[in-house]
Amino acid sequence: MDIASINRPPAELVAKVREVGAATASATLAHMGLRNCFISGPVSYNTGKVIAGPAVTLQMMPKREDMFDEGEYADVETQLHRHVLYQVEAGDVVVVDARGDMDSGIFGDMMMTYFKGRKGAGAVIDGCVRDWAKIKKLDIPIWLRGVTPNYHAQTNLMPHAVNVPVACGNVTVVPGDIVVADDDGAVCVPVAKAEEMIDKAHRDHGWEDFSKEMLLRGESLKRYYPLHKDAWPEYEAWLADNRRKPV
Amino acid sequence: MDIASINRPPAELVAKVREVGAATASATLAHMGLRNCFISGPVSYNTGKVIAGPAVTLQMMPKREDMFDEGEYADVETQLHRHVLYQVEAGDVVVVDARGDMDSGIFGDMMMTYFKGRKGAGAVIDGCVRDWAKIKKLDIPIWLRGVTPNYHAQTNLMPHAVNVPVACGNVTVVPGDIVVADDDGAVCVPVAKAEEMIDKAHRDHGWEDFSKEMLLRGESLKRYYPLHKDAWPEYEAWLADNRRKPV
Amino acid sequence: MDIASINRPPAELVAKVREVGAATASATLAHMGLRNCFISGPVSYNTGKVIAGPAVTLQMMPKREDMFDEGEYADVETQLHRHVLYQVEAGDVVVVDARGDMDSGIFGDMMMTYFKGRKGAGAVIDGCVRDWAKIKKLDIPIWLRGVTPNYHAQTNLMPHAVNVPVACGNVTVVPGDIVVADDDGAVCVPVAKAEEMIDKAHRDHGWEDFSKEMLLRGESLKRYYPLHKDAWPEYEAWLADNRRKPV
Amino acid sequence: MDIASINRPPAELVAKVREVGAATASATLAHMGLRNCFISGPVSYNTGKVIAGPAVTLQMMPKREDMFDEGEYADVETQLHRHVLYQVEAGDVVVVDARGDMDSGIFGDMMMTYFKGRKGAGAVIDGCVRDWAKIKKLDIPIWLRGVTPNYHAQTNLMPHAVNVPVACGNVTVVPGDIVVADDDGAVCVPVAKAEEMIDKAHRDHGWEDFSKEMLLRGESLKRYYPLHKDAWPEYEAWLADNRRKPV
Amino acid sequence: MDIASINRPPAELVAKVREVGAATASATLAHMGLRNCFISGPVSYNTGKVIAGPAVTLQMMPKREDMFDEGEYADVETQLHRHVLYQVEAGDVVVVDARGDMDSGIFGDMMMTYFKGRKGAGAVIDGCVRDWAKIKKLDIPIWLRGVTPNYHAQTNLMPHAVNVPVACGNVTVVPGDIVVADDDGAVCVPVAKAEEMIDKAHRDHGWEDFSKEMLLRGESLKRYYPLHKDAWPEYEAWLADNRRKPV
Amino acid sequence: MDIASINRPPAELVAKVREVGAATASATLAHMGLRNCFISGPVSYNTGKVIAGPAVTLQMMPKREDMFDEGEYADVETQLHRHVLYQVEAGDVVVVDARGDMDSGIFGDMMMTYFKGRKGAGAVIDGCVRDWAKIKKLDIPIWLRGVTPNYHAQTNLMPHAVNVPVACGNVTVVPGDIVVADDDGAVCVPVAKAEEMIDKAHRDHGWEDFSKEMLLRGESLKRYYPLHKDAWPEYEAWLADNRRKPV
Repeated sequence: MDIASINRPPAELVAKVREVGAATASATLAHMGLRNCFISGPVSYNTGKVIAGPAVTLQMMPKREDMFDEGEYADVETQLHRHVLYQVEAGDVVVVDARGDMDSGIFGDMMMTYFKGRKGAGAVIDGCVRDWAKIKKLDIPIWLRGVTPNYHAQTNLMPHAVNVPVACGNVTVVPGDIVVADDDGAVCVPVAKAEEMIDKAHRDHGWEDFSKEMLLRGESLKRYYPLHKDAWPEYEAWLADNRRKPV
Repeated sequence: MDIASINRPPAELVAKVREVGAATASATLAHMGLRNCFISGPVSYNTGKVIAGPAVTLQMMPKREDMFDEGEYADVETQLHRHVLYQVEAGDVVVVDARGDMDSGIFGDMMMTYFKGRKGAGAVIDGCVRDWAKIKKLDIPIWLRGVTPNYHAQTNLMPHAVNVPVACGNVTVVPGDIVVADDDGAVCVPVAKAEEMIDKAHRDHGWEDFSKEMLLRGESLKRYYPLHKDAWPEYEAWLADNRRKPV
Repeated sequence: MDIASINRPPAELVAKVREVGAATASATLAHMGLRNCFISGPVSYNTGKVIAGPAVTLQMMPKREDMFDEGEYADVETQLHRHVLYQVEAGDVVVVDARGDMDSGIFGDMMMTYFKGRKGAGAVIDGCVRDWAKIKKLDIPIWLRGVTPNYHAQTNLMPHAVNVPVACGNVTVVPGDIVVADDDGAVCVPVAKAEEMIDKAHRDHGWEDFSKEMLLRGESLKRYYPLHKDAWPEYEAWLADNRRKPV
Repeated sequence: MDIASINRPPAELVAKVREVGAATASATLAHMGLRNCFISGPVSYNTGKVIAGPAVTLQMMPKREDMFDEGEYADVETQLHRHVLYQVEAGDVVVVDARGDMDSGIFGDMMMTYFKGRKGAGAVIDGCVRDWAKIKKLDIPIWLRGVTPNYHAQTNLMPHAVNVPVACGNVTVVPGDIVVADDDGAVCVPVAKAEEMIDKAHRDHGWEDFSKEMLLRGESLKRYYPLHKDAWPEYEAWLADNRRKPV
Repeated sequence: MDIASINRPPAELVAKVREVGAATASATLAHMGLRNCFISGPVSYNTGKVIAGPAVTLQMMPKREDMFDEGEYADVETQLHRHVLYQVEAGDVVVVDARGDMDSGIFGDMMMTYFKGRKGAGAVIDGCVRDWAKIKKLDIPIWLRGVTPNYHAQTNLMPHAVNVPVACGNVTVVPGDIVVADDDGAVCVPVAKAEEMIDKAHRDHGWEDFSKEMLLRGESLKRYYPLHKDAWPEYEAWLADNRRKPV
Repeated sequence: MDIASINRPPAELVAKVREVGAATASATLAHMGLRNCFISGPVSYNTGKVIAGPAVTLQMMPKREDMFDEGEYADVETQLHRHVLYQVEAGDVVVVDARGDMDSGIFGDMMMTYFKGRKGAGAVIDGCVRDWAKIKKLDIPIWLRGVTPNYHAQTNLMPHAVNVPVACGNVTVVPGDIVVADDDGAVCVPVAKAEEMIDKAHRDHGWEDFSKEMLLRGESLKRYYPLHKDAWPEYEAWLADNRRKPV
């Protein structure tokens, strides 16, 4: 089996993308000309998680009985849904094009237990997992369309390729792209655009925590959202002040 | 910008609609000949809330680049999704026809913070918001189809009009209509039908708490649901008794 | 009204199916040639429940005003959605073909209260209930597509038959079949296949708890999932050891 | 095999329904309180046909391998899709609930050839046929969702019952109901409502041919559509005149 | 009733848009920054027609029984679907937002006969008409999603406004915009962009007929599609030559 | 650009598959264990054509502005939708995974003219073409979901790869597989299964023309469909007789 490795971006870059978050990443990329990097469909199944990491990918395709043998335990090492997990390193995000299928559980409890052991950051699946009651307890950050008792190749799908570009939730995800995901959903940040996105995000949205504080005090929307240039010194003072505080 | 205000119904009327609740309001309107006032699609995103209030409306339309300039912060005061919030008074319900779009976050954290400051009762959106992790903490009663990191006009939609009749979740909502929403979903009560609905609801369903108490004791379904005329005096005694108790 | 009773399978058989769970039941039936017994669509509305029981069924059909009189309280004893509940005995699962309709609440609070009184095991509905805030408090295991304020025959549906084979979530469910449901969803186990399924499930998956324990210790995936024949004696020792422990 | 026959309405009644046509039948039934008798989905596959006839029905259900044996030619006499055709008499309309499935060809060339031999009036299928190039040449009036090379039980469906009430295109069709179909689609006329519908249709729409003639001459829409009472004598004169002419 | 008239663009401008055709108009507008002006959904129901004309619009909304009285012939002059036709002048295109509904026939034979009398250019309806067999004979250029026997307000819709901006096939159409439609479908050309679009279309695609002639002779794709600058003089000679020929 | 060529099966094999036709191919493959090889979605846009040929494939993916430059005419030789046509040899079938998108015209008139020049057998596209009025005149056998004025990368898609396995109409098509298409739709015949399929098809269905002739004469369905073993000698006589006749 001939599976490509991914090029992983520097950990600091990934950490900065995570700090930006899905909403600001998506909006900033749009203002940079990438209209839609939102992986539409999968939603957070254990809310409150925020992750970022390079994508390792699994592509499911419509099942063909001449290409995929049903015997789940015969020569299991040929199963590609195992191999995508073998590729996982600490901090990686598994991204699966499961074709939106609601009757195929791409991974079950055992596979996700193994994934946890490999210290994957999380998984974004345009489809389902099975054994949800057990996977939930593993507390792995996971974005799904749903859950099902069916296994990955029980009905309509078969695993087809690992670490190729995939269409997940109507976004093309290239292996090694940085996926950032939180309660708003998952966003694909093309690795070559990450630095620019981070810089722009800080310029455009850095003042938002400050503005929110002002709005909660009942201050003027026009002055504070978006931040009016007259209020910029005020923000910088606040910022300097905040940096001195512990988080 | 020329935006109509709404006529707000008396607060007591609104309070009575709230007390009736979505399920009884919808069923009673159906028996009055309004077959379906249920705003189908948006579901409660912070369960346990019960609200009623007059509708202020926002109509989104398919985006046309010649009619909507992408620059989010250039002349922000022309943005209609701000203006619908400027229209909000304490107790109002914002109703948005977002065309069921799953890739547009009509409001984000900042806008909803402002909405909270204006003491709006809640929002019913046939689409999504963004910044969900933050909005959730604001604890505003809200009914949605989903959440997304994308902003309101990032992909397919643009705000088009405020306080016009809108189609939300396949119901025509007229500005000023009373929207009642709880864990069953949101229902539009035409303001001219509200009194009649309330009266009929009390006649038809007033005995339900009593009957439920009887059913839990193992009493006969035929006698107590719906309440048989033979059991009516029993109910009236219970009612008189209950009114003496504190809630 | 002429409604057939169901033949109930032995309680021990039902209990064994429940122990197998939805995921293993579905997968095992697939390996036995029943490709898909997963009732796709309804999801758990009060997670953490695991039930199994014989199906009593209700078939909804598109409403025809000449076949269904709107008067909810005139001659209520003709209403079939009451009669399906009259058929319920302790441990039964009500299965409703509600045609995936999102605007019809098949049962409300009163009916579900009555169902609880009859000690039904739970309900699987390819559609909605109403009065969700109240039903939730009853804590009945329930699998739904959604909730609505509308009543069962308010818009498009009418109850048509009780205890006939129904199509629920794209599976044909025969009255008396064993339905097992948990957080993965609901699965229909044809009663004549139940014994074979249980035996096969134990052979094929009995070692999974053991393997998971090994994987969590960082042991080899190839040795323990699926369980390699070399590791079988190890598993049997573990099993014997475990049986001595209290659960 | 125990299959009920249908009660066929008098041929003259059927002929009158046919003369009314789908559009006027549907509208008139709506004004009589049957909101929607339109079988939505199947469209005419050989335009220009107008048929009416009593419904013989076939119900397809989701396939279960334990209930349906794949062997197409083993004991073919058990196949229900043959038996629905055995029930056909001259002038009957076969109505199939095929669950909207686009991957199952309910009938093929051979079956439809046999149907033609039995002098069926036509078929309305909420799904597909196969062998379309050949069936087209048979010139049987047929309303379909589509065509497919797959046979009736190849993927997801199995025939389940003959001459039971079925849901076809979101309308409940009872065996023996009169189905009228033309280029607008197929409409189910409940047999007990047929006389009343015919009478009302003649009262409400009998003048339409006259009015159209007037409109084509450039006469006033207000006077002639709908027919103003002042113009009624004019219409009656036209009618008397027309009846004298050959068609 | 207070209905706005539309501003009609000059006839020569409309004629030039028609000559450009839907495909080149849509592509050219996209290159000008209007990503998608294609009215997606309605397809040509009498192929071979090519029309362009200013849009008069009708907006359908979800039916509310308190806002729309069922009596089809009581005070018919209040019916807005009549009024949109009263607004039609020779060459106009009626554009209807019918919400994609497949069970409402916006216009029937009588209305379309009247429309033909008013010399409308054609109709684009994001939904259906009824009386299709008769309308087809009128040979009016028409783009539809389907046909139905039901009338316009029989089930879910009611006419709500005339000559307001509408969302048709996921495009915002402003009254007076030029709609061009042919076998590829209908495209909305914003009137203020029409001149620029026409000029650009001639520059970018004027050579296509020439190139096609070359390709049919087996000439090089690289030289002739798109037209290489080396071949431009060749094209100009061909053009000059062609203009001398009669069409 | 590094594009793989396909291995073409022998012309006689392709011819035999064509003779079998889509319906018998699909049914026979199902009886061989390949449950569903029907490319569901694309329908014949110029009926009466029957083709078979090896698949050359084009995979469209969701558009990413950083991966696809809008400039249609800048460096056109990088455009993959041109390269799939460069791969076409006489008799090939172009198969496009266009993701079911209804707003992207994969090929236009110029490209299809070039395709005709290369003597391609036809095209199967899970999506649309543009310039339909012109392409129709080219009379190329083509199976589509629809037509649109938009160009291939105008809205949501970009060409991504040529001659890789693609998912088209929910079937995995491998480059070089034999695609057979007629008025029933398109079917993918895995090249390694073609011989077996052809042999089995002749055994199982060879008698159908004979049986149809018998049925048209009013003979017994039980004897002639499927062909009873008693009638086999009769069929063989007919066959011998027919082979002597000219077609």
